[in-house]
Amino acid sequence: MTNRRGLLIILSSPSGAGKSTLSKRLRLWDPSIEFSVSATTRAPRPGEVDGEDYHFMTEEAFKRSVAEEGMLEHAHVFGNFYGSPRAPVQTAINAGKDVLFDIDWQGAQQIRNSALGQHTLSIFILPPSIKELRRRLETRNQDSADTISKRMQKSWDEISHWGSYDHVLINDDLDRTESELKQIVTATRLKRIQQPHLVEHVRSLQSEFEDGQ
Amino acid sequence: MTNRRGLLIILSSPSGAGKSTLSKRLRLWDPSIEFSVSATTRAPRPGEVDGEDYHFMTEEAFKRSVAEEGMLEHAHVFGNFYGSPRAPVQTAINAGKDVLFDIDWQGAQQIRNSALGQHTLSIFILPPSIKELRRRLETRNQDSADTISKRMQKSWDEISHWGSYDHVLINDDLDRTESELKQIVTATRLKRIQQPHLVEHVRSLQSEFEDGQ
Repeated sequence: MTNRRGLLIILSSPSGAGKSTLSKRLRLWDPSIEFSVSATTRAPRPGEVDGEDYHFMTEEAFKRSVAEEGMLEHAHVFGNFYGSPRAPVQTAINAGKDVLFDIDWQGAQQIRNSALGQHTLSIFILPPSIKELRRRLETRNQDSADTISKRMQKSWDEISHWGSYDHVLINDDLDRTESELKQIVTATRLKRIQQPHLVEHVRSLQSEFEDGQ
Repeated sequence: MTNRRGLLIILSSPSGAGKSTLSKRLRLWDPSIEFSVSATTRAPRPGEVDGEDYHFMTEEAFKRSVAEEGMLEHAHVFGNFYGSPRAPVQTAINAGKDVLFDIDWQGAQQIRNSALGQHTLSIFILPPSIKELRRRLETRNQDSADTISKRMQKSWDEISHWGSYDHVLINDDLDRTESELKQIVTATRLKRIQQPHLVEHVRSLQSEFEDGQ
């Protein structure tokens, strides 16, 4: 038995709220945290690496995986499928490692309601303002005005689900938010249900007590 | 409206596991945390100050308070009554302040199941060994062998309830345990349900989004 049970750490936020940076910093802080690489049926963008940025799949292969319960969660967004492959998560959790998910509210909801829901820590990152979100989408320079408008709508849809998350952080200072995020992870690892080894420890205290009486 | 909702922080452990020291250090770290001074019907020990160490009460006054729902929790231990007066807790929580309780499993159970249960953070401190507990009880030098034996039994009874607490810490290094305790408090303050001001923040994001579309 490992000393602790792995956590499913879900980070959600509208794009532009700092989620990717925070997710990188969390894994720099503790490299034992594995990242759940999503599967998708959308075409790779220039520079994206299969197996690192996404697992790129055909629609047929994706649907087969879903039918065989190979996806922990999945959703259909802007005409493409996205999902979190189940096997690597199960392997990591069983080995006492945490897995980080950079997914949206639909995925978060499905994982929370799955068999692993009890070991899920979900954190929503709110932006200080909408202005900042819009600025970041516009300066990416890779999307049309129509796509940006769609993405702003998607951002608002995402924000509207903040009320289903365990913890909510307003990211108006990246360093402070990073510190809060780490403290939330540390604290959640110290939850009773994340520490199966405690049963052994208390059993040894009991033997010691009974021997002494 | 205050920026956050106060927490009821419950620290439980057998006596000798470091609970009093940790409780002091937590309040040095954040003096805004109020301490719930217990009421008791037992006689003051030399040096104990009424209103600081305990609120000393007659059995009649204690029973009247319980009848009038003036106690958030109460229990009968070794022939004396102990309880946590409700009014100061309610005042602090409403003002967005946390309240720290140094109480046993019976009190913790009652508070967890009270109307304030949702805002309760319960932490159990386990000793690394029983030997250490016994040593500390013996060197206090103020109790008879019979009382020590009774207290060891009470310690074990207390430990046996570790499984009802949110977080469990093994105190084999006081500084590390202190750091863990603080991180748990910080993380719990960042829970969605502890931050009523988030509703306002999201409402302002929504206005901003709607104005921009």
